Amino acid sequence: MAYIQLPDGLPGIRGAMAFRPETAKPLNELVEILLHAPNSLTPGERELIATYVSSENDCYYCQTIHGAIAAASLNDDESLVKKVKHDFENADITPKLKALLVIAGQVQKGGKHVTPEAVAKARGLGATDIEIHDTVLIAAAFCMFNRYVDGLGTTQPRDEAMYRERGKRIAREGYFAVSKEYLPATV
Amino acid sequence: MAYIQLPDGLPGIRGAMAFRPETAKPLNELVEILLHAPNSLTPGERELIATYVSSENDCYYCQTIHGAIAAASLNDDESLVKKVKHDFENADITPKLKALLVIAGQVQKGGKHVTPEAVAKARGLGATDIEIHDTVLIAAAFCMFNRYVDGLGTTQPRDEAMYRERGKRIAREGYFAVSKEYLPATV
Repeated sequence: MAYIQLPDGLPGIRGAMAFRPETAKPLNELVEILLHAPNSLTPGERELIATYVSSENDCYYCQTIHGAIAAASLNDDESLVKKVKHDFENADITPKLKALLVIAGQVQKGGKHVTPEAVAKARGLGATDIEIHDTVLIAAAFCMFNRYVDGLGTTQPRDEAMYRERGKRIAREGYFAVSKEYLPATV
Repeated sequence: MAYIQLPDGLPGIRGAMAFRPETAKPLNELVEILLHAPNSLTPGERELIATYVSSENDCYYCQTIHGAIAAASLNDDESLVKKVKHDFENADITPKLKALLVIAGQVQKGGKHVTPEAVAKARGLGATDIEIHDTVLIAAAFCMFNRYVDGLGTTQPRDEAMYRERGKRIAREGYFAVSKEYLPATV
């Protein structure tokens, strides 16, 4: 039972978004740009950052749906997603993405935890200013999304098949398109 | 010196927004709806929630600018804003707002920190579902904004007059209107 009366049948953030479509619109636009729009970081890389931060914040819904989107974007490699959540330094990802995940983990703890050394290391491994910016903002945004989803006590079903199926769809169509199914057309 | 090359002369989040106008657009829309648009919570009450969370997250820029907007919305009562940041239980605000600030403080610590008791107390003091929703999302959103501003190492001048002046303007005109001065018209 959520803390407020959310629409039935919409787990996680979807119920909260359907409850308040006015705020759902910019939230969906933000995540579409950060995670799905064309970028020098692949959708899979950006979804791994979102998944890692959500895992650090212990948000079941967010880490599972974004983990599923990440896997769908990475040849269905669910074991890679799991490895990144728990031990990214030894995962089969690029050194640059590891350095960006270090920054993301610092942002998760708090903005002042980010160190010049972590930024310099990412830059030395080829990260551009916009990639560093987007990493900071993705990590910060998931500190919002995770708190929004858990802070309202939303329903978070333990149904891996549901997340896997939906993850494939979002990886293919993006957030904005998929959100139309539960948001009023007028927003 | 920020961690990435941000435009000169734009402190705090403004530099980051001018650097990446694509994400600035939904961020400004979100804050416009949450803090400035018509709502059963006054702009002053919502700005106090944003200021309190930013103070808990120790973000100088955010707590100072939103504190200034709050004061501008509350008959220039800067001492009330200061009291809410440091001791809201004894501030001259409504019991309902105190109960909402308790929820906001729980969200600041993490989504799972929100308790049914805190929500029930706010509801008992007259808070509606949408007011509880908006409190959770304002608190969550400032956990993002604070991390964004500090995580990029933005410039945060210690110039109270600048914040006071700008606070009055945002209280009067809103976020979306004021953001046009530093965002390209095409966004």
